[in-house]
Amino acid sequence: MAGFRTVKGFRDFFPEDCARRNYIFDTWRAVARRYGFMEYEAPVLESTDLYRKKSGDEITGQLFCFEDKAQREVALRPEVTPSLARMATARQRDYKKPIKWFQIGSCFRYEEPGEGRSREFIQFNADILGDNSPGADAELVAMAIDVMREFGIQPEDFIIRLSNRSIWTQFLTDNQVPDEHATTFLQIIDKIERAKPEDTANKLEAIGLSLGVVRAFMDGTNEDHPAFAELRANLEARGLWSCVKIDASIVRGLAYYTGTVFEVFDLKHGLRAVAGGGRYDKLCALMSDGSVDMPSAGFAMGDVVLGILLSKTPGAQRGIMDYMTAQFGVDVYVVVADEAQRGHALAAVQALRSAGIRVDYSFSATKMNKQLQAAENAKSRAALIFGSEYPEVVIKNLHNREQKGVQATELVEAVKALLSQPAHGPLIASESEKG
Amino acid sequence: MAGFRTVKGFRDFFPEDCARRNYIFDTWRAVARRYGFMEYEAPVLESTDLYRKKSGDEITGQLFCFEDKAQREVALRPEVTPSLARMATARQRDYKKPIKWFQIGSCFRYEEPGEGRSREFIQFNADILGDNSPGADAELVAMAIDVMREFGIQPEDFIIRLSNRSIWTQFLTDNQVPDEHATTFLQIIDKIERAKPEDTANKLEAIGLSLGVVRAFMDGTNEDHPAFAELRANLEARGLWSCVKIDASIVRGLAYYTGTVFEVFDLKHGLRAVAGGGRYDKLCALMSDGSVDMPSAGFAMGDVVLGILLSKTPGAQRGIMDYMTAQFGVDVYVVVADEAQRGHALAAVQALRSAGIRVDYSFSATKMNKQLQAAENAKSRAALIFGSEYPEVVIKNLHNREQKGVQATELVEAVKALLSQPAHGPLIASESEKG
Repeated sequence: MAGFRTVKGFRDFFPEDCARRNYIFDTWRAVARRYGFMEYEAPVLESTDLYRKKSGDEITGQLFCFEDKAQREVALRPEVTPSLARMATARQRDYKKPIKWFQIGSCFRYEEPGEGRSREFIQFNADILGDNSPGADAELVAMAIDVMREFGIQPEDFIIRLSNRSIWTQFLTDNQVPDEHATTFLQIIDKIERAKPEDTANKLEAIGLSLGVVRAFMDGTNEDHPAFAELRANLEARGLWSCVKIDASIVRGLAYYTGTVFEVFDLKHGLRAVAGGGRYDKLCALMSDGSVDMPSAGFAMGDVVLGILLSKTPGAQRGIMDYMTAQFGVDVYVVVADEAQRGHALAAVQALRSAGIRVDYSFSATKMNKQLQAAENAKSRAALIFGSEYPEVVIKNLHNREQKGVQATELVEAVKALLSQPAHGPLIASESEKG
Repeated sequence: MAGFRTVKGFRDFFPEDCARRNYIFDTWRAVARRYGFMEYEAPVLESTDLYRKKSGDEITGQLFCFEDKAQREVALRPEVTPSLARMATARQRDYKKPIKWFQIGSCFRYEEPGEGRSREFIQFNADILGDNSPGADAELVAMAIDVMREFGIQPEDFIIRLSNRSIWTQFLTDNQVPDEHATTFLQIIDKIERAKPEDTANKLEAIGLSLGVVRAFMDGTNEDHPAFAELRANLEARGLWSCVKIDASIVRGLAYYTGTVFEVFDLKHGLRAVAGGGRYDKLCALMSDGSVDMPSAGFAMGDVVLGILLSKTPGAQRGIMDYMTAQFGVDVYVVVADEAQRGHALAAVQALRSAGIRVDYSFSATKMNKQLQAAENAKSRAALIFGSEYPEVVIKNLHNREQKGVQATELVEAVKALLSQPAHGPLIASESEKG
């Protein structure tokens, strides 16, 4: 077939994909609300300078950026934190601190699509602004853990790898490494698990360090390090510390983190990080040219790696299936057995929907058995048959095949009563909406 | 203050704006589901050719289009129907007809922002594909009406202006106007209510018609015209025909409509159309180079004009307020009166949230009265006070100031019991989340 295709790295969400996406959205939202976070949203398009300010010129290489028709340099957002800093600093006087906000929406990166990577992806962002306590860091780590559990990912199937950039700041001071090498050093640590040891050793040597000293420090850094004491006590009190593993190699590539940093990894499939975040105390000041100083922390979780993980986790499937069963299909299907009754049937359709009931029916004259088949396909609980016996309407329970006649005037109440009963046997999520 | 701004024509959604937006989304979704429609989503970025194919080269003037880094011509979608046609024709064998799908998401137009117009706006799209019956058209008009009513817009406050392009096709045939002038003619009709009569007369004359003849035909076209007979009978049966006014000047600017066309207007404020749509039987064939013939109809409603209308309609405010009251704030606020009990308080926070209860608390040591004030600000039903009397926890009902002590082990059940009671007096949606 001829026809158009999606742009490289972009995705269509057919109804079954969209239901999976909505299940992810609803789960993110449910946990964030339990944590008392409020939802916000930022534009998907921002000035390119917003990202340059935060990350330097190099960032434009991965940006989906372009000039608009008035030669403005604009970019499809690669992340939401710069927009959040822009918004929160602009109106920080209007909100009590700490500001606890979450967001769900598309982000874009111009990079080669692959497993776990697309050019358009959806992120969940949760941030706490205006609070520099370890308690705020703990709240975010706890939320990341609860999000994973809410999706049906068991504690033994994922881990929070956590560190604190301050341990490396102290290490550099202790080893007399000048401040100017700090960024280079963190980039080396960020890649240390993937790079060849001799390359790492060479790079460290260039800034006056040996791989042996660095490795020994990493190996000696564990949960007893005082940098983690408050966070640990907090998460232990919640019973969540067993989900955390201290890992000094976690620094997060982006330059703006200042304290706690963490990433969420699955433990069974070797996927890329499901989520990551940390403390970024200086970003708001940077983005507001120093006019608003607001210590902050947050994390982001994308839908792509998460989606792969959910598809590989049997225990995560039930939530999705239950959701899809509830979302798809209708409650009742109106069958027009006698076209002379179509007007009455339409009036009933309207009355039922006005009562909040999901109703489907055939738009034009259709054979009876085809209508009943459509009722099954729509996973309808009952067929409401409008035939020559009107004003009596036949309600046929499609689960147990029982049927009875009711007067049209009593139809809405009768349907409500039927729907308030549990169905005979669970509705199986089938592929029957497909042809 | 220094700082960045949104790109021209783009919008920030602070929490109060985001809640209003989510209320609109939820209302659209609720009505669409009652009608048995399934949600889908398409990419926000598509090949520019997709829009050229549908609308011709002129469309690029209003498109937010650019070249990506690999010189692909791409555009931020100005509407979703071309993507829908692309998706549905590509996989039409996988879905039973009629396909009834809805979508909610951002669209973009590069036009001057103004009242009711922004460069990024959100659309609700509902379409029925693979059904050419007037019953399908009626279903869409009924849904548009039910969406307006669900928002609290009363039937006397809005009208569906409706026509059918076939009446003009017949008119052109009857007046021996060659087919090649059909598009020009429809553009003249589209502007006839706003253009100067002498300009309209001149343009009509150029294609062999007089303004008098056209005006007489329009004035003589009413609900008794046979082109509306089936639609009318259908909507009369539902009790919705009184919301419809036949208006032959409605043709919808875009060229792809083939039958029924309609727009939704408010009747009190003279706003731009809130929604519009119609039948487009040839679009799927066009977009698939003739390989899939799928007669279709649909409509779109944007969030910008709707938002203005809701803000001007007192009766529409209650739904929004109820929604915001339910969305914002938490169920209970945990107060740490004695820092030695923080660990127990955190354990309770975790247990309450795991039971689905929305909980907030202060992340670090804070004066008691400040914590109680924060509990009020968060619209909490109760404060749970962890003091030196632990394991007794004091539950303070913030509506009636009553308080009682419960054992920590019974806290979750006690809170559930409290939340299952109606609050004493309604919670007023205040501005108190602001500082």
